[in-house]
Amino acid sequence: MGAERLGYHRQRVGKSDRFLRACRRQPVDGTPVWFMRQAGRYLGEYRAVRERHGLLEICRTPELAAEVTLQPVRALGVDAAILFSDLLLPLEPLGVPFHFAEGEGPVIDAPVRSPADVDRLRRFDPREELRSVLETIRLVRRELEGKVPLIGFAGAPFTLASYAVEGGRSTTFAATKALMYGDPPAWHRLAGLLAEVAGDYLRAQAEAGAQALQVFDSWVGALDAADYREFVLPHVKALFARAGGLVPVVHFGTGTAHLLALQREAGGDVIGLDWRVPLDEGWRAVGDGAGVQGNLDPAALLGPRARLLSRVDEVMARAGGRPGHVFNLGHGILPTTPVDNVKAVVDHVHDHAARRAGSG
Amino acid sequence: MGAERLGYHRQRVGKSDRFLRACRRQPVDGTPVWFMRQAGRYLGEYRAVRERHGLLEICRTPELAAEVTLQPVRALGVDAAILFSDLLLPLEPLGVPFHFAEGEGPVIDAPVRSPADVDRLRRFDPREELRSVLETIRLVRRELEGKVPLIGFAGAPFTLASYAVEGGRSTTFAATKALMYGDPPAWHRLAGLLAEVAGDYLRAQAEAGAQALQVFDSWVGALDAADYREFVLPHVKALFARAGGLVPVVHFGTGTAHLLALQREAGGDVIGLDWRVPLDEGWRAVGDGAGVQGNLDPAALLGPRARLLSRVDEVMARAGGRPGHVFNLGHGILPTTPVDNVKAVVDHVHDHAARRAGSG
Repeated sequence: MGAERLGYHRQRVGKSDRFLRACRRQPVDGTPVWFMRQAGRYLGEYRAVRERHGLLEICRTPELAAEVTLQPVRALGVDAAILFSDLLLPLEPLGVPFHFAEGEGPVIDAPVRSPADVDRLRRFDPREELRSVLETIRLVRRELEGKVPLIGFAGAPFTLASYAVEGGRSTTFAATKALMYGDPPAWHRLAGLLAEVAGDYLRAQAEAGAQALQVFDSWVGALDAADYREFVLPHVKALFARAGGLVPVVHFGTGTAHLLALQREAGGDVIGLDWRVPLDEGWRAVGDGAGVQGNLDPAALLGPRARLLSRVDEVMARAGGRPGHVFNLGHGILPTTPVDNVKAVVDHVHDHAARRAGSG
Repeated sequence: MGAERLGYHRQRVGKSDRFLRACRRQPVDGTPVWFMRQAGRYLGEYRAVRERHGLLEICRTPELAAEVTLQPVRALGVDAAILFSDLLLPLEPLGVPFHFAEGEGPVIDAPVRSPADVDRLRRFDPREELRSVLETIRLVRRELEGKVPLIGFAGAPFTLASYAVEGGRSTTFAATKALMYGDPPAWHRLAGLLAEVAGDYLRAQAEAGAQALQVFDSWVGALDAADYREFVLPHVKALFARAGGLVPVVHFGTGTAHLLALQREAGGDVIGLDWRVPLDEGWRAVGDGAGVQGNLDPAALLGPRARLLSRVDEVMARAGGRPGHVFNLGHGILPTTPVDNVKAVVDHVHDHAARRAGSG
């Protein structure tokens, strides 16, 4: 398969270390690049699998999840694989079953709204209840043969709670905040439990072979800094403590320009930036103690090539070759993205490194 | 009706000027307070009207729109009325019909996706095609008898375009940005037309009696500063020029912490702040040349009274009694908000003024 040959053809000596070295803010031979949702609907190979299998079926079947995880590595030549899974998988063993409605995203069967609902949730051992995910990790590691590292992930307490409480996606997070403000002890029990479960899950992923981890607090930007400090920060800290520090961790959110210093305080070797904050300004807010990941607008990939690549150049210029930058989008690849544009970004980021090497 | 007596009972000498004086950064006898979506589902009186009439029917029937506009003035004692209308009304005469699907928000019958779609839109005269709105303004002014001023409003080009292009609400604005990046001339024709129409519409509202205006660019925070400067700023400037400067204008968006200086550059006597940016920091970004409106998290109204009022105090403290602050939420009142909490905020802001007067 052409894409497969292309992908592996582009491997260079040292490539397998590029992402992990950047996470540790060590010098690299070139800026590593991967994409959130790099395994997804924009890829023909992915759509072919999805025609035959449901989303949760793929997540829970190691062979399928591994195959889908590897597709973008072959097709794009990215510098890291990310486990194909769903953020919500830990909800079911917690006692919060859900399904995906056609074209509507996740639907929680019985949203968690009251203190009694919170107290009904059950702690569980991810090594048991999510073992198919850990098996996927082992399979992917075997298939990758060290070519690029594998990133595991889990949702952070606020983001996981928002799905459980709202019953699905939200734009206002009204029910989540109503619980938070209305019954802080119940909120802290909920967020504390989610932090434990997500921390254990991340640790189990690292033990199964994930060489880095990403914590998705995708929706936490809906909170102001005071709420973050009171209702989220302690739980994210607990999550990081529990995850164990075995491997580097990326800590990601969107709309978080006002929270970056607090997110850094909560934990993470690398802080994810969305596209709203220029990378250099975001990095200043994060501080010297961490790297940054980002931050091209995913919608830039929908536009013409020249404009797209000039925006890639802008991100690279703002990073300025400083150790600790992982190139990524500010959020996931959009389903309508042309694959060729994604490849062009990978090549452009890699060529940037080659140009620097050539002139250095 | 008790609420009605309550509302008018609380009028004080000078109250009718409070909001307009604040818009001009003149000293006031107390910080003016009103709420985005103060006429809405959280109010029993509103739900009673909605049981008998559709949303667009209310918007297009001056007697009904006037009644709904006045409800929160009576019930809450706010310092300004805002025209009850829908942001999307100008789309229909432009040639973009839409309807409201049950529980789903607006659905555009045929989204504007191509340059040909853009060129099919027709310029129109709001004094003709939206005259029912202007009639509502005249009715409301008569009913208000000068007790509080009436605010008119319109959507800004990006926000209006996003509905027309996406076909409804969006979280990614993928199609809008695809048009913007993919065919900048078509985008500029679309945004330019929307700026003309919205500017004319605002001017017509002021001429009909609106004593202030608000420009809603609710979703523009999805753009980074470079995109705002290239694709939005010139059109918002044109809108302001066209609106005519007859009355003060509030310029509002959400998620705009990174855009505040540019929004101020685009226009507006008062810049709206959402809750993510602390009011004093937001005001610093806006600069000395404009007031600010905001910025309590609407979700704070879902929480217990003591926490709610301490957050009101925090907003007031950050404003520091500086002329030019209009108290409001960071976005619209949520449908699940208890009316008593909204009243409590109005009274608390007003009592703050009384306390300052008492100690001054």
